[in-house]
Amino acid sequence: MSSYVYPARTTTAEIELGTTLQPKFGPDGLIPCITQDVHTGEVLMFAFMNAESLTHTLRTKKATYWSRSRNKLWVKGEESGNVQQLREVRTDCDQDVLLIKVEQTGTANASCHNGYKSCFYRQLAADVNPDDPSSFKLSFTSKPLFDPATVYRKK
Amino acid sequence: MSSYVYPARTTTAEIELGTTLQPKFGPDGLIPCITQDVHTGEVLMFAFMNAESLTHTLRTKKATYWSRSRNKLWVKGEESGNVQQLREVRTDCDQDVLLIKVEQTGTANASCHNGYKSCFYRQLAADVNPDDPSSFKLSFTSKPLFDPATVYRKK
Repeated sequence: MSSYVYPARTTTAEIELGTTLQPKFGPDGLIPCITQDVHTGEVLMFAFMNAESLTHTLRTKKATYWSRSRNKLWVKGEESGNVQQLREVRTDCDQDVLLIKVEQTGTANASCHNGYKSCFYRQLAADVNPDDPSSFKLSFTSKPLFDPATVYRKK
Repeated sequence: MSSYVYPARTTTAEIELGTTLQPKFGPDGLIPCITQDVHTGEVLMFAFMNAESLTHTLRTKKATYWSRSRNKLWVKGEESGNVQQLREVRTDCDQDVLLIKVEQTGTANASCHNGYKSCFYRQLAADVNPDDPSSFKLSFTSKPLFDPATVYRKK
């Protein structure tokens, strides 16, 4: 089958307090998705899904996004080998965001194309001066687990 | 001061592997923000910030978003009392998403306007059939911590 049918959006009460998934795909057909490590709770990445990628995720149990830059289905890890096994799907109160919990697998167990476990590998300085942009400094909180140059082949 | 100046976006290398915050505010002036409980790692909510709300967050150390529905600055908890104290700010590899870690405070320690600790209080059935939308059932994973009807005054 190649259809990707989701329950229609009904009333605010049903959407917010009901028991049927009624995901809101935006005008561009996309819904934001937060991906969390099922074991540690670490937020690994943030990406978008369309109906096709959500269905693909549910069918294969492998996190599948929609790549906006490449305009195509993006099976996470298909190139790097760092596949995300689906463990849980959640949605928020108004069902315009998804949260998935995954088991990050693969040679390096890394989510980020830069080689880090999580894409959120930098932290803003605690003593930033909001009125002085030159103080907006980031520091690295982890080290890369693989070398992107050797994992992603040149195309 | 009332300016909200952020470092300009420079090169991909600087954005992805550099040490300066260069947040990408979209064409609508907004950047997505994931909010996580600093103690438990639970994802509490997902909202948007503009430059003004990010600066307000950094100045006051209280999570402040941009309400798209009300088109105004949204100091989280200003009405319900469930203020989020800022503990950490992160950004992702391409700096088009923010992740903040907060201490959820207030009478109920709840983030969601429906009274729940987290907006992600429902989970999709594990045995969903991707080809049958009628199987897309959600179950509640927590109970509300406050009654919205008594916390939010009618306007």
